[in-house]
Parts: sequence; C-alpha cells; structure tokens
Amino acid sequence: MTGRRLKHWGWGYEDQAPSRAELEQAAAGIRERFGFGGDIEEAVPLSDVELRASRLKAPAELGDLFTDERYERVSHALGKAYRDVVRGFRGEFSNPPDLVAYPRGESEIEVVLSWCEAEGAAVVPFGGGTSVVGGVEPRLGDRPVVSLDLRRLDRVLEVDAESLAARIQAGATGPRLEEQLRERGLTLRHFPQSFEYSTLGGWIATRAGGHFATLYTHIDDLVESVRAITPRGTWESRRLPGSGAGPSPDRALIGSEGILGVIADAWVRVRPRPRFKVSCGVEFDDFLAAARAVREVSQSGLYPSNCRLLDALEAGTTGAGSGEKSLLVLGFESAHHPVDAPMELALAIAREHGGAPGEVSGGGQGSDAVGAWRSAFLLAPYLRDTFVACGVLSETFETAITWDRFEDFHAAAMEAARAKVAEVSGAPADGPGAPRVTCRFTHVYPDGPAPYYTVMAPAVRGGEVEQWDEIKAAASEAVIENGGTITHHHAVGRDHRPWYDRQRPAPFAAALRAAKAELDPAGILNPGVLIDP
Amino acid sequence: MTGRRLKHWGWGYEDQAPSRAELEQAAAGIRERFGFGGDIEEAVPLSDVELRASRLKAPAELGDLFTDERYERVSHALGKAYRDVVRGFRGEFSNPPDLVAYPRGESEIEVVLSWCEAEGAAVVPFGGGTSVVGGVEPRLGDRPVVSLDLRRLDRVLEVDAESLAARIQAGATGPRLEEQLRERGLTLRHFPQSFEYSTLGGWIATRAGGHFATLYTHIDDLVESVRAITPRGTWESRRLPGSGAGPSPDRALIGSEGILGVIADAWVRVRPRPRFKVSCGVEFDDFLAAARAVREVSQSGLYPSNCRLLDALEAGTTGAGSGEKSLLVLGFESAHHPVDAPMELALAIAREHGGAPGEVSGGGQGSDAVGAWRSAFLLAPYLRDTFVACGVLSETFETAITWDRFEDFHAAAMEAARAKVAEVSGAPADGPGAPRVTCRFTHVYPDGPAPYYTVMAPAVRGGEVEQWDEIKAAASEAVIENGGTITHHHAVGRDHRPWYDRQRPAPFAAALRAAKAELDPAGILNPGVLIDP
Repeated sequence: MTGRRLKHWGWGYEDQAPSRAELEQAAAGIRERFGFGGDIEEAVPLSDVELRASRLKAPAELGDLFTDERYERVSHALGKAYRDVVRGFRGEFSNPPDLVAYPRGESEIEVVLSWCEAEGAAVVPFGGGTSVVGGVEPRLGDRPVVSLDLRRLDRVLEVDAESLAARIQAGATGPRLEEQLRERGLTLRHFPQSFEYSTLGGWIATRAGGHFATLYTHIDDLVESVRAITPRGTWESRRLPGSGAGPSPDRALIGSEGILGVIADAWVRVRPRPRFKVSCGVEFDDFLAAARAVREVSQSGLYPSNCRLLDALEAGTTGAGSGEKSLLVLGFESAHHPVDAPMELALAIAREHGGAPGEVSGGGQGSDAVGAWRSAFLLAPYLRDTFVACGVLSETFETAITWDRFEDFHAAAMEAARAKVAEVSGAPADGPGAPRVTCRFTHVYPDGPAPYYTVMAPAVRGGEVEQWDEIKAAASEAVIENGGTITHHHAVGRDHRPWYDRQRPAPFAAALRAAKAELDPAGILNPGVLIDP
Repeated sequence: MTGRRLKHWGWGYEDQAPSRAELEQAAAGIRERFGFGGDIEEAVPLSDVELRASRLKAPAELGDLFTDERYERVSHALGKAYRDVVRGFRGEFSNPPDLVAYPRGESEIEVVLSWCEAEGAAVVPFGGGTSVVGGVEPRLGDRPVVSLDLRRLDRVLEVDAESLAARIQAGATGPRLEEQLRERGLTLRHFPQSFEYSTLGGWIATRAGGHFATLYTHIDDLVESVRAITPRGTWESRRLPGSGAGPSPDRALIGSEGILGVIADAWVRVRPRPRFKVSCGVEFDDFLAAARAVREVSQSGLYPSNCRLLDALEAGTTGAGSGEKSLLVLGFESAHHPVDAPMELALAIAREHGGAPGEVSGGGQGSDAVGAWRSAFLLAPYLRDTFVACGVLSETFETAITWDRFEDFHAAAMEAARAKVAEVSGAPADGPGAPRVTCRFTHVYPDGPAPYYTVMAPAVRGGEVEQWDEIKAAASEAVIENGGTITHHHAVGRDHRPWYDRQRPAPFAAALRAAKAELDPAGILNPGVLIDP
C-alpha cells in the first residue's frame, strides 16, 4: 500500500508521532496534572524490532495479493489495547502474521481462504486493526497465519436514497464511507472512538457501539443485510427492512468476530444529515442522582442522541468539568424537525433529580462542556501513546447492567478496580499521584446503562502488561460476578475469553462451535476468538 | 385441563361458537356485502372425528404429565391457518400428536424431552396453537410425536419495576401476562392479532409482530434474556440491557420455532401504561401517495405507535372506510409526555402527500375510523370460522420490502394473487361477487414497509385447501421473486419452507443444521420446521 502510513505501533499515522520535545512537554503537563508519570522513554524503532522469519511463502502466481514485508507484518501483529500499545512501544511483536493479504475483491478473499486452507494456515480478518481485546493478534503458536486486511475494499457500492440505505464494502473506514455518503447528502452517523481508522466490516464483526446514546446504539441496528465469504460459500442475506423468517442470519454474523466468515460488504441504514441539533451539559452534585435522572430519561421515550454521564473525576480529567460535579451531556438531533421540545422535557427530568443545566446550544457545536468532552473523547487514543512513553497506565473496561443492579454493581466494580490498582501500582490512595478510576455512561437503555470505566495510574515500567492484566482480571471478575456483560461494545477477542466463557450459555457455545465446524471445517478463521476449536 | 375449553378447530372457546341461526344470518350478510358465499355447512363434531390410535403409551409413573385424551389430541393437531380451519371444520385431523404433555415446570419439560428421546418420538412445542404456517402440526409420517403444551407455565415470576422488566413464563397468554403486569401498573404492550390465545414463548419462538407499528415492531426488541431447555442442557442468557459479547445468544433463539429448545421463560422489557394517546385517521385518494407519506413519516424519527395504511378496498371491507379512499391510521402514545406535537408533524407530512386527516382523538379511543379498524382487526380470526362454514375463502400473506422496490413489488404481488384467485375461484373479475385482494401495512421501517395482503373469494367447497395452496404458492413466488421476505411476522413453520429455503443464505442454513444437530442429536424438536435434518 502506498501513501500515508499508519504507525507500526500505537495510534495514528507516522507523521502524527510527537517529537521528543513535544513528548517532554506533555510528560511535564501530565505530571503536574495527575501527579504521576516519569521521564520519557523512546519507542523501539521498526528497524530494531526482532521479527520472526515468515513461515509462509506466497506463491508467485498470486502476484501482490500477499506481502511479507517487515512493516506490514509488524503493523498487523497487535491491536490497540493498552497492553498492545505497550508491547508495540517496546518492540515486542511475538505473534506477527507470516503474511499480510490485501485482496481487491471477493474473488481474492476466496483465493486467500482456499490457499490458507491448503497450507494449513490460519486467517485473521483485519479491518482497522483497532481491536482492544486481542481480536487481531494471531496468538497461534506454531500455526502459520495470514492477516487478511480488507482496506482495499473501501467503496460505497450503491446508494438507495429512497430507502435510506447504502451498500458499503467492509474495508471502508469511517471517514472513507462518510466522505462518499456526504456526496449524496447522507450519513451513517456511526462514530465509535476508533472512527478514523476502524472499518464497517470491523464494526459489524465486533458489534461496535456508536454515536447514538439511545435507540441505535450498536451497529447491529443499522445493518440491513450482510455479505460474507465463508470457506464453504457466500453468506448473503436479503435486503429487508424487517423479517421474521427464522433466527436472523444477520444477527448470527454480527459479532462473529471473523470466526464464521469474512465480511465483504453490507447494506446499512443511512440517514440525511441532521439539520436540527441541540445540546446541553447538566451538572449534578451526586453521580447516583444523575444516574437516576438518566434512568428516567432513558425510560421516557425521548430518545436523546447523546446522553453521556461522566462522573466528577472523569469530567475533571477530560477537562469537561471542574472535577467537583458529575456532568450529563445531553443532545438531540433530527433531520426532520426542531428538537428543542424534547430537550426541555429531558432537562425537566434532570432538574427533578437535582441537575443544574447549563445553556442549551444549537447548531451542533454544543456548550463548552459538551465541546470539551467531545475533543477529549477523540484525542484519548492519541494521548495514550504519550502516556505509555512517560510511564502512565491508561486503559478502560466497559459493560452494561440493568438499572436495579446498577448501584451495587458500580460500587463493586469501582472498589475492585481501585483496590487492585492501588495494590499493583504502589501509589497513594488519595491526593496528588493517586490512581484514578472513573466512570461514564456511553449508552443507555430503558432497562439499564452501559458504564465505561477508565483507569489511570503510574505504570510499572517494564511490567505494564502484567500490571494491567492484574487490574483487568480483578475488574472483569467484578463485572461477571455482579451480573454485567464482559463487553458492551469492545467485543470478546482473545482477552475477554475467560469471562465470556462464563457469561454465554453453554448450549449456545456448543451451537456456535458446531456452526463454525460446518462452515470452516479446517478451522482457519481467527482461531481462539470467541470459542476454542 | 379444566375450565373453559378452546374449540377443537378454528378460533376461540367452545362457548363462543355461533348457533345455526347466527351462522345463517351471518352468511346472508356476507352474501349481501361481498356477493359470494353459499349455504351454511356444519362442522364435523369432535365425536365424529376419525382419529388415528395413539402410537405412544405414557408411562404410569409420570402421572398426569401426558394425556392421550381425544379432545386434547385433536385440538393439538392443527394450527389456525385457513387451511387448518378448513380441515378442522371437515374433521380432517390426519396428523394428531400421539400424546399431549402438560409440564408444570422446567423439570417436567426435561422429563418430556428425555422420555421422547428414549422413545424415538418427536416433540412439538405448543403455546397457543395459533400458528398459521404449519408450525405446530406434526406432519411426521410414521414417527410418533408428543405435543408439548406450555399453558401451565403462565405466571409472571418476577417484576423489576426499576429496570422496567419482567420475567414471564413461556406459556402465559397475552391476557394472562397483561393481567399480572397490570397489578404493577405495567404492560408489555405486545398485541399480535392472536393476543387472546398466543403465548410469550410462542411469540419469541416465531418473532411475532405486535402493537407498535414502528421501532419495537417484533417481540425481538422486547426480549432481555431467554431461558430454554434443550436436550443438551439449559440455555440461559444473562439479563442485560445491551451487550456486544459475540453473536447474540437471544437472537439465535428468537425465531428458532422450537427446533433448538423449549423456551421456558424470558425476561422482557415492559413499560408503564400510556397516559397520553392520540390517534387520527387520514384519507388518501391514492394508495401509492399514501405509501409515500408513510415512507416520510417512517424516516422522520417521529416513531408513531400506530401507522397502519389500509388500501381503499381493505378500509371498506373492514368498515373503517367507505371503500373509496385509502386510510392511514396514525397513533402516538407515551407514559411520559403529551404526544400532540409529533401527531401534528406527522399529519403535516400526510397533508403534503394529499392526505385528508379526520379529527385527532385523545384518550386512546381514536376516531370512528380508527376504532372500526381496531374492532375489525380483533374480530377477523373469529369471522374466519364463519366464512369457512358459508363457503368463503379468507386468508392472508405478508412480507416486508425496501421502499425503493415497494411499488413494483406491490403491483407484482397484487397481480399474482389476483390472477391466481380468479383462475381457481371461477368468480367474476370485477363487480359484485368478485374476489378481493387487499393490502395494508402492519409495520413500517425507515427502509421499508411490511405489507400484509388479505384474500377473500368464493371457496371451492371441498377443495378449499388445494384452492388456497395454489393462491398461496403464486403469491409466495411473487414475494420471493420480487425481493420480499416470505414472512415478516407469521414465521416459517412447514408451509413456508419451499420459499424460505430460497431466501435464507445457504451457509446460514448449514450452520443452523449443525447447531441443531449439536443440541438435539436425536432430532426430536419440531422436525421439518425451518430446516430438514
């Protein structure tokens, strides 16, 4: 591939990497603000990475479909979790794919699958590579593996402006598909934090969560039909607005994380760009009172497009608030009618629960608090590379839980994370330099919120992965023990397996294994994700 | 079972069967109104039904779990399609179950499954028995079969008023579960036409369509978690408001029509009873213009609870309109806030497309047109028994299609049905006595409507089943050829198999077969539905 190159580790393009001086400055700022973080360390350059020799040789007759080029193999070896960024930073790429394939279309996807099946190689479908759960890292021991990168399939193939739907190739990133939809005055409005790099196919494979805080929360609800290539043929559902013909074939593929087939393209539901937008930040003294306000809003049938609740510390950390108050970011939008009235109704609910609304802003810019939150949200993954360089641990875990259990759940999850962070970070429990465990709601439903926890702490340098893995295990244990899901929108991958295996119904896992064995008898597709062979 | 008994054929309770005099009067009214229908014939009484001897003997140690009583076997032998009602009327029960089981709880469901597996018998899970697609008729040739009736599992087990969710047993009928929810001020508000008799488990197994014309159209969207008994263990998902952990286990069971397991209970999303309701009938000269208005409403984000469009003839047939104009029945409801504003916005859209709104009514009663439509909707299945008695064919087929293809699709479906009805009914094409093929939208989505077609014609007496099967085949062919789904909310069962088999992706069918073989290796669960073994 030519043009601007993504960094071989961490977030963003090579030309976005900060200079030494910028890193020094950032580190000083972080130390001042959070009271932790140390000197800047340098990332291991690509040329110094010790890379296992490729165990596969692409046949010459397949031309440039495969590459074993160093940069390509390294940049497909890890996802973007903290544990991935740390390892990439330190030059630790222990599970590189042996080849990277760049199919130009379906027939070349089929060629890759057939060739891998014949070679006994595994195939890891790769979209933007932004998995934070080990979904694209080929931890397969001695088995050779090909990373199948879909980025050449990046076009909007058809637009049906009457039904508001578009057929889009799986490898289209957020900006690529939005830029093509914009020409038609349309938008998908699915904006996960990884939007710049992640792809439609990846969103569908992982049940990505997006822009809408209510109603159309996951990509699931925007999918009209899917076309996937399996080792045993093409899986294509009909374009239908709704159907009751048997269990939904689309829902069986959505969330299948590459183990059943390679998603080639999908018809998705798009919409006109919103003409009416209002947003408002509401401050609360008490996070749990704010949560009750959110519950009432979520059950009101008002369906705000934005309804994100940040606890006080998270609001302070992101610069959206002072750090003293919880902040509820409310937004409504429509392409059809003004949305001031539902905003007023939602704010009335918030006030009843002790909320103090700021000014309602129109035009989509939002108030200062709302704008600050949005900027921080988009910058977060870039910042993490800097955190790693200066010795700051920064990672998240997320879930969903019904309202009746939320307060106890939240207390247990916070306590489990805080206790383990303190234990493994050797930092003071309070005051400057204390680790931060904060919470926000990313999405809310009538029956419960999706809480998202962020952990920041001084890193144990050289032991970051073990440090985080211990915190993550304690947090995951609390999540599963207290009735949550191991993931609301980060997927399962390989990292969530121990807890996912306790969560999913055993007969469902047996059924999924049987389905996979039928469609992928050689077990080439993303082995180890979701189920064991 | 004791108490009021359902008729052994057709719709409703035994005590609701019309007298001879009432039938004569109805037949005269039908002849006058539609120009067809003949003399009253009498249904074959239960005592005259020739019933194959039971091929299974329930072990005495299982007590009253099983019965081979005549009424029970006969009343579990057919569903409620026109072809079922006709056959029941004529005393043709060629596929009676050998036993009917009435488990009192999960452990007894397990007992039934184990016993059937040991005996080599099949099991047909049975809720209200209102399938119109052959879903509960054991067409299994020489294989003995048990109808597993869930009606004893009819309780609301838990209510979580904070999350607005309730755990309800699968055998609870609409009225039973609503009566228990009402004590808590709550409602599921899922009102399929079969509401009086059908059950939560049946709704989930068949992806039933309900009250809400937009947004929460299918029961699918109201399910929080499902508990099912499979021959290889209990399949129970976590109660979660949302999750992204692998393909949804619930979505794999929803629509599985009894082939993967027996649904025992489910957590479903309930809501407070609506306090604010408005409704309005809007007349249109042109059905297609009305459809375009509906399209705009469906894409507006207004989410009416009711948005049913009846073509002129259907509006006339049901008494909701004069028969000259298409009628759009619009409704909004909320437990939280007044809904006059969205109604005004929806009516503005309707007017732009040439619609003439009647008066907006509050309080949920609706205008005369809306009330007339609702009464006709609820009476329809009762009326059909009378139609059969006096020689009138009355049946429906339904689908969903994207908006871009709707107009051509609709023309093709109407033409195919009309042509075949004319051919097999020997009735005049126009004027009094002409068959009627009419259309309404039952549910609408941003990307397309769910059109529902009703056929009325003079029956070929004694040949009703063949007559309808020919019409149905022609209609189904048109539906599938023109891109629709073979069912939006009537399920697949056995009757839709030839077309469903062309619709679903082949790899999905292979995966489903493998999943079933894993969970139900003896193939006891509802064989022949959805897939062949």
